[in-house]
Amino acid sequence: MPHEYEPRPLGPQDVEIEISHCGICHSDLHLIDNDWASSVYPLVPGHEIIGMIATAGRGSALRTGQRVGVGWQRSACFECEQCRAGNENLCLRQEATCVGHMGGFARRIRVDGRFAFPLPAGLDAASAAPLLCAGVTVFAPLRRWGIRAGARVGVIGLGGLGTLALSFLQAMGCEATAFTSSPDKRAAALGFGAKDVASSTDTRELRALANRFDFLLSTVPGRLDWITYLETLKPNGVLCLVGAPPGLIQFPAAQLLTRQRAICGSDIGSPAAIREMLVFAAEHGIRAQVETAPLSEVNSAVQRVRENRARYRMVLTN
Amino acid sequence: MPHEYEPRPLGPQDVEIEISHCGICHSDLHLIDNDWASSVYPLVPGHEIIGMIATAGRGSALRTGQRVGVGWQRSACFECEQCRAGNENLCLRQEATCVGHMGGFARRIRVDGRFAFPLPAGLDAASAAPLLCAGVTVFAPLRRWGIRAGARVGVIGLGGLGTLALSFLQAMGCEATAFTSSPDKRAAALGFGAKDVASSTDTRELRALANRFDFLLSTVPGRLDWITYLETLKPNGVLCLVGAPPGLIQFPAAQLLTRQRAICGSDIGSPAAIREMLVFAAEHGIRAQVETAPLSEVNSAVQRVRENRARYRMVLTN
Repeated sequence: MPHEYEPRPLGPQDVEIEISHCGICHSDLHLIDNDWASSVYPLVPGHEIIGMIATAGRGSALRTGQRVGVGWQRSACFECEQCRAGNENLCLRQEATCVGHMGGFARRIRVDGRFAFPLPAGLDAASAAPLLCAGVTVFAPLRRWGIRAGARVGVIGLGGLGTLALSFLQAMGCEATAFTSSPDKRAAALGFGAKDVASSTDTRELRALANRFDFLLSTVPGRLDWITYLETLKPNGVLCLVGAPPGLIQFPAAQLLTRQRAICGSDIGSPAAIREMLVFAAEHGIRAQVETAPLSEVNSAVQRVRENRARYRMVLTN
Repeated sequence: MPHEYEPRPLGPQDVEIEISHCGICHSDLHLIDNDWASSVYPLVPGHEIIGMIATAGRGSALRTGQRVGVGWQRSACFECEQCRAGNENLCLRQEATCVGHMGGFARRIRVDGRFAFPLPAGLDAASAAPLLCAGVTVFAPLRRWGIRAGARVGVIGLGGLGTLALSFLQAMGCEATAFTSSPDKRAAALGFGAKDVASSTDTRELRALANRFDFLLSTVPGRLDWITYLETLKPNGVLCLVGAPPGLIQFPAAQLLTRQRAICGSDIGSPAAIREMLVFAAEHGIRAQVETAPLSEVNSAVQRVRENRARYRMVLTN
């Protein structure tokens, strides 16, 4: 339901943004449902924001009228070891755009201007909105782990994150295999740039891919056969989780030792990674495939995401 | 018991080495006991070898009289993707010095000369022998994971591997914490260069180290409280296993995701890593702390290792 609130005063580094678009991410559903036991109501979700700077604090480098994007993170301490190393996304005092603050399913928002990123020319607002969270979440680990042209990469899950990962990988010259549990998404995966497609859940099909991948990126929140997935990694291969499966990850240590494999997680991306990702997306014409709905239809749009019917990202428009 | 055998013919790349010293590694005990179901008897263990080149094949760059070391690996295919990338230790067709071949608890041995490494001047044979396996096993992952001066590193286990890791870390300018389950080894750890010491098994003591380490190197083959250890890692921190615990490693995915932590394994080291490690050890005066015993007393020496009484590496001498 519509909710009005009085924003906090605009700090010197802050900006107020007139929102034109905001993507709906599965994290928004988790917040609505209080799955992480962190939600405070009234709650305004939304953290894949595109808009125009309406007002900029006197210390901000941004100026009125600039088109910017805002993602999951709205602020950081800028003082700790992680911030000083350019890993502001790992700052322990970071603030999230829509946890403890009012998010982007709204007309306007105020955030720290250092987390509002000017959009390169050529990026269309609706298809760029999901880049701010889904996009950087898959782009940042590919950069951090040094994935280069020619690498063989498996992408597990074909939602908003997985489809963007396939587009980035194609642009990077990598050879991507898409893993999905939905037979009806197999053809689409090839359209997004996958070289081939495999079942994400059929152990026999996974076993045929033993010793194949340099990198596996799992975008799904479900429990998978991690032991068999680890066997699909080449020596020095890395399994990177950006979706959080429930329960425990379990495997024998020997799977890591004898082939020097690694399992890691990745958490959104730093401001530097977001900037690089936006430039990369503009240069390579990478666009999220989106459905749009006006903000007034937010409830039915959220329901469509909840039922996994959106192809592939839902974006609200003002 | 003494065993005589006729070696295979000396290939053009092969060398025959007159062995002066050979360390006893826990892997040798595993082979003797057939713990890995790979042992073929009669079996000659031994893969931390120092000796003189007695004969060099005509294609070998080594020459008679040169002092060399040989570690776990005796050969590789030199053709596969891993070999071509300088990761010969990850070659799927690699051969081990004492698995399917007669090892270094012997007078002489034949190996591929590309796995016999000239010892830099200044390295003493007895204390250098353990460098060839234990040394490179802990040195290689520190290099591969970019551990630099100032890094905070936890070393779990204070045997042959752990003590060498502490020496390397001190020479690298890192701040090392030693984890041990033996109260009597605590003082020794400081002597090896640890800045402080903690219990490897006391969960309360581990919890006090939350968010402290850039890198954790586990050298122990035992089951530990990995979930609590993961919490001792800073964001972007890495837990690297070089000892193989039994059973399954288990943890919630969120431990990797929210702080971008990683768990990995490491398997000995490449020829390039062995060469660098030997030069580094010579430059920084790094010596394994060893007890020696003549080859004729191999059985009692092995027993001493089996009972964890050696301080810290046992080396057989000819």
